[in-house]
Amino acid sequence: MEFISGVKEKETVPVDRIKSGGYEGRTVKMEGSVHTIRDMGEVAFVILRKAEGLVQCVYEEGKTDFDLSLLKEESTVRVTGIVSKEERAPHGFEIRLLEIERLSQPAEALPVAISKWKLNTSLETKLTLRPITLRNPMERAKFRIQEGIVRGFRDFLHSQGFTEIRTPKIVARGAEGGSNVFKLDYFNKKAELGQSPQFYKQTMVGVYDRVFEVAPVFRAEKHNTTRHLNEYTSMDFEMGYIDSFEEIMEMETAMLQYTFGLLCEEYETELKMLKVTLPDVTSIPTVRFAEAKELVSGKYNRKIRNPYDLEPEEEVLIGRYFKEEYGSDFVFVTHYPSKKRPFYAMDDPADPKFTLSFDLLFKGLEVTTGGQRIHDYAAILKKMEARGMNPEDISSYLMIFQYGMPPHGGLGIGLERLTMRLLDEGNIRETTLFPRDVTRLEP
Amino acid sequence: MEFISGVKEKETVPVDRIKSGGYEGRTVKMEGSVHTIRDMGEVAFVILRKAEGLVQCVYEEGKTDFDLSLLKEESTVRVTGIVSKEERAPHGFEIRLLEIERLSQPAEALPVAISKWKLNTSLETKLTLRPITLRNPMERAKFRIQEGIVRGFRDFLHSQGFTEIRTPKIVARGAEGGSNVFKLDYFNKKAELGQSPQFYKQTMVGVYDRVFEVAPVFRAEKHNTTRHLNEYTSMDFEMGYIDSFEEIMEMETAMLQYTFGLLCEEYETELKMLKVTLPDVTSIPTVRFAEAKELVSGKYNRKIRNPYDLEPEEEVLIGRYFKEEYGSDFVFVTHYPSKKRPFYAMDDPADPKFTLSFDLLFKGLEVTTGGQRIHDYAAILKKMEARGMNPEDISSYLMIFQYGMPPHGGLGIGLERLTMRLLDEGNIRETTLFPRDVTRLEP
Repeated sequence: MEFISGVKEKETVPVDRIKSGGYEGRTVKMEGSVHTIRDMGEVAFVILRKAEGLVQCVYEEGKTDFDLSLLKEESTVRVTGIVSKEERAPHGFEIRLLEIERLSQPAEALPVAISKWKLNTSLETKLTLRPITLRNPMERAKFRIQEGIVRGFRDFLHSQGFTEIRTPKIVARGAEGGSNVFKLDYFNKKAELGQSPQFYKQTMVGVYDRVFEVAPVFRAEKHNTTRHLNEYTSMDFEMGYIDSFEEIMEMETAMLQYTFGLLCEEYETELKMLKVTLPDVTSIPTVRFAEAKELVSGKYNRKIRNPYDLEPEEEVLIGRYFKEEYGSDFVFVTHYPSKKRPFYAMDDPADPKFTLSFDLLFKGLEVTTGGQRIHDYAAILKKMEARGMNPEDISSYLMIFQYGMPPHGGLGIGLERLTMRLLDEGNIRETTLFPRDVTRLEP
Repeated sequence: MEFISGVKEKETVPVDRIKSGGYEGRTVKMEGSVHTIRDMGEVAFVILRKAEGLVQCVYEEGKTDFDLSLLKEESTVRVTGIVSKEERAPHGFEIRLLEIERLSQPAEALPVAISKWKLNTSLETKLTLRPITLRNPMERAKFRIQEGIVRGFRDFLHSQGFTEIRTPKIVARGAEGGSNVFKLDYFNKKAELGQSPQFYKQTMVGVYDRVFEVAPVFRAEKHNTTRHLNEYTSMDFEMGYIDSFEEIMEMETAMLQYTFGLLCEEYETELKMLKVTLPDVTSIPTVRFAEAKELVSGKYNRKIRNPYDLEPEEEVLIGRYFKEEYGSDFVFVTHYPSKKRPFYAMDDPADPKFTLSFDLLFKGLEVTTGGQRIHDYAAILKKMEARGMNPEDISSYLMIFQYGMPPHGGLGIGLERLTMRLLDEGNIRETTLFPRDVTRLEP
C-alpha cells in the first residue's frame, strides 16, 4: 500500500530563495510561462512569467540545448540554467539557459499583447478576453491587492474577537425584496438571491457577539454605471454590546489602518507596479448628513434640491470638500434620514427623522454603509407597522428580538469599490475578476 | 469637526485577561447575555454567556444593587463585580455582583432550553428555531471549529504561494449543466447558479499558477439525504506545474496536517466540549478505485455489481477496511473511471478508461474530489467531441487552452461534510449554519 504524507520538496527553486542570496553561479531549475521572447540573433531573452513576477532567462546559441523556434509566447517550460547577477533584470538576477523542457504549447498566438506593460485595449475587449488579459502583470497585480484587502479585513477582525460565519445565498422571497432581486424557483417555492447577509449576521450576533462574513451578494439593478455590479463581494461585520454607533466607525477605521499596513508590508511590489499611494487613515473626519449638504452647498454654490437624499454628485463634492479642507480621502457621513434607511436601522432618539447610521465615502464614492440596528422586539414591530410591512413574512428574523438581542450594529463594505478607489480606477469592472452587469454574463 | 481614529479601550474586561491573572479582588465590568439564573434564595448564580464562554456571576441579596426579578434568561446586561477565585466555575473565577445594568430584555421566554448542556430537541425543531438554538454552547462550538477549518485551509495555502480568488456565482447556462442546476433569469438571458468554480479556478491558474477559493456552490439535487445540501461551501484549490496528480493529494494531506494542528492549538475548548479526537493524518493510504472494490468485495463478501461505479455502501466499506487494516480514518481512492468523471479530467495514459483523479474518503464519506485536468487544447476538444459536447457553449473557458496552459490539477472539499465527519455527526444539517435542502428555505 502506498501512503501520502505531505508536500515533497520540488526540484525547482522559488524566486524568493534565489533573491535571498547564495545562488550565483549555481545551476537551478525553474518553471513558468513564456511571457515574451526577444530574439537578438545569437542571444535571446526569454522572459518567464511566474506568480512571483517575471524572470529573465538568456538563451545562447551553442550553449542552450534547445531549438528556440519551438518556443512561443505562452508555452510553459521547465528550464535549467545558471544564476547570474544582473542588476537590470527583475529581482536582480538572470538565468543563463542550459536546457529548456517544454511542458505545454499554445494552439494559437495571443489575440492581445499581454506582455506589454500596460494593456492597450478597450475595457470591452479586456473583459471579453478576461481569461487571457488577466495574465498581464499589471492586471493581475490589481487582484493581488484585492486579496490583501480581504486578508486585512479578516485578520484584523479575528484579532478583535470576531467569528467568521457562512450564511446562505438562496433565501426565501422576503420583506426587504423590492424590484432589484434575482428571483429563483426553489423546488416550487419562491426564492431569491441574497442582497445582503443582514438578517443572518444580526442573528449570529446573538450567538457569537461579534461576527463577519466575506461573500457574494446579488442585486438585479438595471442601470449600467461605472460603480454598480449585479454581483459583488460584500465584506460584512456586525458587533454586539456597542455603547454607540461610533464604535462601528472606530472598528472600521482601525481595520483600514491595519489593512493598509498589511498592503504596505506584503504587497509592496504590486503597489509600486500600479503606482498606488496608500491614503492616510490615521483619523477620518465625520460629518452629519444635513451638515455635509450645507457645507458643499455653501462652498461649491450648489442648491439643495432634496434635504433627505444625497445625489451622487453631492457625494463627489463632499469627498472633494474634505480633501480640500482636511486633506482626507475618507469621510464618514452620519445620521442619514430615516426614510432612506431600512426598517431595522435605529432612529436617533434626539431626532427620529434621522438614524444612528453612516456611510463611508472614499474619494467621493460610498464604499460602506453601516449603523446601529434596532434590538428591541416592540420597537422593530412598531417600525415595520409604520412602513406597512408584515411581520409574518420575516418571522425567523424577528425571532431573535423576541427572545432577546444585545444592542448592536455593523456595516457592509463593497470590496470592488474599495479596490477601485484605492487603485484610482474609473470603472468598477477594472477591479472585478469576472464582472456581472446588465449585459455581461460571461466569461 | 470630529475625527475617528481607531478602536478605544472598552471599560469591560475580556475573560482572557482575567484568566491571565492579577484580577482577584478587583472590581471589573463585563457584558453578556443571561444564559441561566439559579436562584438559591439569598444567593443566586447568574451565568453570563459571552463569545468567550460562560461566566459565573454571584448575586447576593443586600450586596447586589438590583432587583433580581427584573432579569430573565436572554436579558443582556452590563455587570459590575469583584473577581473571586472559584475552581468549580468556568475559567476558574466568578464575579461577585455589585451592580447590574440591563441593556435589553427579551419579549418572551425561550421556546427551548438552550442553557441545557445538550439540546434535547429533534433536528427539525433545532433547525426551525436555528436563530435561537445556535445560542446553545455546544451548537455554537461546532461552527467555531468550522471557522478553524476554513482558516487552516486558507492560511496553509497562502503559505504555499496560492492566491485567493473570488469568482462569480451567477454563470451562463453552460455545457456541464444537467438537471441539477438552479436556473435563473438574468435580464432575459439564461443563467444558472455555479455548481463549482471549476472553469474559473483553472482560468486563474494561467494567471497566478496556484489559486484557491472558499465560496458557496449550488446543486439543485432533489434527493433529501443526510449528506447532501442544495447550497454548500466548497473549499477549492487548483495548482499549476504539477509533475503528477499525486502532488494534489500531497498538498491536501499537508493542508489537513496544518489545519488539525491549528484546531488543536486554537480551538481546544470547542474540541473538548464536543469530545472530538482529531484523526491522525501523518500519512494517508492511497488505493486504486478498481483495487478498492476488490478489497472490500473480498473482505466483506460483497458482490461487485458495477465495476465502473462506487456505491455509497462501498464507500463506507472502503472506509472501514482502511480503518481496520491501517488504522486510518482517511483514504485516497484514485484512478476513477473516465466515464464517471467530467470531460476536463485527464485520462490515465496507461489506461484511458481511468483518470488521473481521486476522491478522499473520511470515515467512509467522500469529502474531496480532485485530479489532474487536461491542459492541451486539441486534447480537450477531442474529449468534448467524443461526449457530443459543443465547444462554442464554453468558448470563454476553452480560450485558456487555446492560448496555453501549464499542466495542472486541483480539488474541491465539501466544508460541511468535512466538519460533519470530524465531529462525528450523523446529518450534514448539524454542521451547516442555515441549511438549504429540498424542503428547507428558512431560516
